[in-house]
Parts: sequence; C-alpha cells; structure tokens
Amino acid sequence: MKSKFIIGIDLGATNVKIGLLNSKGKILKKINLSTRNFKGRNRLLSKVIETIRNILKENKLQTKDILGLGLGLPGPVDFKTGVIDYLPNMPGWKKFPIKKWLNLKTGLSTFVDNDVNLIALAESRMGSARKSENMICMTLGTGVGGGIIINKNLYRGSSFAAGEVGHIPITENGPRCNCGGRGCLECFAGNKYILRLAKKSFGRNISLERLTILAKNGNLKAIAIWRDVGRCIGIALTGVINLLNPDKIVIGGGVANAGKILFSEIEKTVKSRAMPTHARTVKIVKAKLADSAGVFGAMLLVKENSR
Amino acid sequence: MKSKFIIGIDLGATNVKIGLLNSKGKILKKINLSTRNFKGRNRLLSKVIETIRNILKENKLQTKDILGLGLGLPGPVDFKTGVIDYLPNMPGWKKFPIKKWLNLKTGLSTFVDNDVNLIALAESRMGSARKSENMICMTLGTGVGGGIIINKNLYRGSSFAAGEVGHIPITENGPRCNCGGRGCLECFAGNKYILRLAKKSFGRNISLERLTILAKNGNLKAIAIWRDVGRCIGIALTGVINLLNPDKIVIGGGVANAGKILFSEIEKTVKSRAMPTHARTVKIVKAKLADSAGVFGAMLLVKENSR
Repeated sequence: MKSKFIIGIDLGATNVKIGLLNSKGKILKKINLSTRNFKGRNRLLSKVIETIRNILKENKLQTKDILGLGLGLPGPVDFKTGVIDYLPNMPGWKKFPIKKWLNLKTGLSTFVDNDVNLIALAESRMGSARKSENMICMTLGTGVGGGIIINKNLYRGSSFAAGEVGHIPITENGPRCNCGGRGCLECFAGNKYILRLAKKSFGRNISLERLTILAKNGNLKAIAIWRDVGRCIGIALTGVINLLNPDKIVIGGGVANAGKILFSEIEKTVKSRAMPTHARTVKIVKAKLADSAGVFGAMLLVKENSR
Repeated sequence: MKSKFIIGIDLGATNVKIGLLNSKGKILKKINLSTRNFKGRNRLLSKVIETIRNILKENKLQTKDILGLGLGLPGPVDFKTGVIDYLPNMPGWKKFPIKKWLNLKTGLSTFVDNDVNLIALAESRMGSARKSENMICMTLGTGVGGGIIINKNLYRGSSFAAGEVGHIPITENGPRCNCGGRGCLECFAGNKYILRLAKKSFGRNISLERLTILAKNGNLKAIAIWRDVGRCIGIALTGVINLLNPDKIVIGGGVANAGKILFSEIEKTVKSRAMPTHARTVKIVKAKLADSAGVFGAMLLVKENSR
C-alpha cells in the first residue's frame, strides 16, 4: 500500500498556508495565499479548494492517497462538529460549518481546530516541548493566544475555548480589553500596546523589529519597554504556573523574536513570584517551528485523529 | 466474596478524620481526632494507627476485608511515590514517605494525595459537579486551595502541585504572600485578611460567622466586606475560566458559608469580565459534601486506583 499524504492548512487573517506533507510529517509543497486578496469567505475558500486540487494534480495524487485534511482557524471552533464559533478578525465566518463544507467540496476526511491549539500540538510533538507532559504554548502577536497540552494531549475545554492566556487579568483596574474584560495580559503585551509604548517613549513610530535591534544595541528606552512587557507576561504566567504546574511554557509569535531580553525578564518574574516547587519544575523556552508550526499542527491533527 | 471496605482519612492541621466506608461509599464509622492533642508526627501517626486497628476490631474486619487506605494531606505530596513534599502548617512532615510507612504499619494498600485534590474528586463523583467534564474546586479558609478535574480525571500537574487557585496574582503590587509571591488571591480572600478587614471596619474583632449574619441582616459594612472578597475571587476566577474553559467551579470551605452575597458578587464579576463563551459555559456553585468531602475523596482515591 502506498503511504498516505496529508493536507495541512493554516488559515489566518493575513495569510493562508497550504501544505502537502508526507506521512512522516515532511512538507513536500507549501503555498502561501494572501488572505486580503480574496474578498469574503466564499472567494477565499474557492481559492483554497483550487489550490488543493492543483497540488494533488501536480503531485499525481488522488483523493484516496490523502489520509485527510487538517485546518487551523484564528478563533474558537468546535473540534467535534467542525462549526466555527466566530473569528475575531474575520467577519462573515461566524457559525460556518467549515468541516462539513470542506469535506463536501474535497471528498477528504477533514479535521479543524483553533490555530494556537495546533501550534501547541506541533511544538509538543516536533518542537520545543517534545518530552513535555504538561505544557502551555503562548503566541505573542496582535493578539496573545494560547494552547494547552495536558498529559501529552491537547486540552480544549468544555466549549473548545480553553487556552486564552492573553485574557488572564493581571490587574483589577486595567484598560478595557477587546474581549470585554479588563486589565488582560493582551492589553500589556499585544503588538499594538508595545508599538504605542514605543511611540510614546521615542516620540515617533518604531517597528517591533527595530525596537528589538535597539534593545540589543543597549538602547535604554527600548530595553525598558521589553522589560515592561516581559514583567507583565511573567505575572500572568505566574498564575498559569501556580494553577497548572506545567513542566514547560513555550512562547512563539512575532513578539517572541525580541529574544533574550524578553525571556530573561519573564524568567526573572516567574522565579521571584511563582511558588518554589512550581518555579523549579517549569522551563520557559522559545517556540521552535516558527512559520510552519500551524501547518505541522494541522497535519498532526489529521494523523492523530484518523481512524 | 465479602464486599470490601475502605478506610478514608482526612489529615489536617486542626483535625484528623478517620472513616470506615463500604464499597458503595457509605460512611459506617467516623472518628475525629484533634491534631493538636498529639505533639509531633510520630504521636499523631501512632494514634491514627491505633484508631484504624480499633475500627477494624469493632467491626470484626480483617486486613483482607479492606480494599485499601486513602489519605488526604494539607500540602503537596507525590501521588506516585507517596512522599510528602512539605505541609505548610505542619512542620516535621517534610519529605516523609507516608505511603510506604502506612502500608508497612497497617498492611493495607495505601494511596495518598493532596486534601483539596480529594475534595475535588469527591465533589466530581458525589457532589456538586457530578456531570462535569472539566471543573475547578476551590476551598476558602485560612488558605485558598484548589483542585482540578480535567476530562473527569484529577489533574495533578508535573510535580503534583497543580491547583493553586489561591496563588494566582490579581494585582502586580499587592502584599507579599506566604507563598513567596505578591498580590495572590489568598491575600484578598483568606480568613486572616477578611478578619482584619472586619476589625478595621467595625473597630473590633468580628468572627466570619457573625460577619455573615450581619450581612444577611443588611449591615452595609458587612455587605461591603463580602462584596470586596467576592470581587477579588471573581477576578482570579476570570483568569482561570478564560484559561481552562471549565463547565463548573465548585466553591467550598468555611468562607463559602457567607452564601448568596458572596456568590452573587463572584458571579457578577465573572459575567462582566470573562470572555462571553467562557462565561456562558461555566456554572459557579457551592460545594455539597461539606465536612466529609475529604474522607469521601480518600475513599474514591482507593476505589479508582485499586488494581
């Protein structure tokens, strides 16, 4: 029997990454679409279907050669029914039965999940947390997302919405958060906040990349900003660590590229605030799989849930 | 074959409760010892062994009639090896191999765990969370403890220390906590804090029971104190709920007897601060098993881990 292939898709508000992977998890082909080039859900999905068909054709594969199609989405989605709850940055996807739809259009066995859940799964199987039993994966970007691995399995929660590390309040009377809450970590560690902080401090717009370079070159203002962000992340993680006693925290996403200065402040905060046994048990590390984590996770979702 | 019996023990800094239960979980005999009457670990444990032997004798039971002995302890304990990490309020128990010791002295198959874990287990099987998949149990007393049920199983964490709801920071620059952290929930919801608040407000010492009665009779100062406590618990739970997306939060312990005024403030806070899907999914309820929860939990620990 010919070994089976898997289609892994990471669908985001900026890009859609579509990969063809072999059964060993190797990416054989990867195509990037710019989400914004396709106005509306239907046009985007048509393009996705077309791309899948082209990939199969080019590689002389038929539907029966594909074990399944995995898809990560930027919002809460019911893993079982495959119905999207809503996608915060993509209107028009609310309550869309994406799993059923894709299965109908492609004939492929389809599995869908939240994108950060899939990144957590990928980091746990192939990335920074391979030996981990209990792990929290955190992605730092415009939003601050999270995925939870418990006893080596993805933990999704009672309505498939677990993992919202970004929406742990770290102060009672903080700013209003997009989520409806107040003083959430995301208000103190999301891209927009950091950029605003930088603009205020430097008197002009500064990109995150530039802010990282400045900090690495010893600029005190830039260092202070990253320390501030790191301390806030550390406070939220202190709660997570005391509550869940994980052996690993994996941090990814654009903001994580700030690197050592950010991580050392996070570690310092956790070490001085978390309970001793908990602090000793946990390792805080950078994510490993970078840009392809979502596609790998989608592949693993298919692999681990087929049959 | 004669159906088997179980010994369940809830060992605390104030009382030791020793129960004989049948295989259906009914308490046939329960004995309370006052921990402080027995100076030191050895004297207390000798009395526990003596009590177990007396119970067996009185009920004409032999070792072979007992499925096992379950024990809950007020601190982190390694569920697998049965070695106590430490007991915050009981010096002299650090690193004591309690499981091995009890097994040797009684000849009974022995299982040990943290006491709040066992309360969570009991509430999940026989109490307020019987249909729950994912639940957090919180105990309000001198300390604020917690236990976590994930996919209907007790979740212990990577070093058997998970569940420390009381040590989630709710503010960055709060008071130093006993745990070494800062601004933990326990600093704003532990007995001592509430009593201090009451003394400050009323200008004299007021018990928690009295404070509850005063609040129920409409005393505005007492109401304000319970609202303050409830709001702080609600803020910490907002983080727990956004992170774990549980279907239930069970709250027990002495402070929970404040009842409606406390619970309605917790609920109000969670409703206004947690993410909508998460807030809709979770129910916040009072613990059901009261004083015997620990003994029931110890019995369940034996039942679910035997063979």
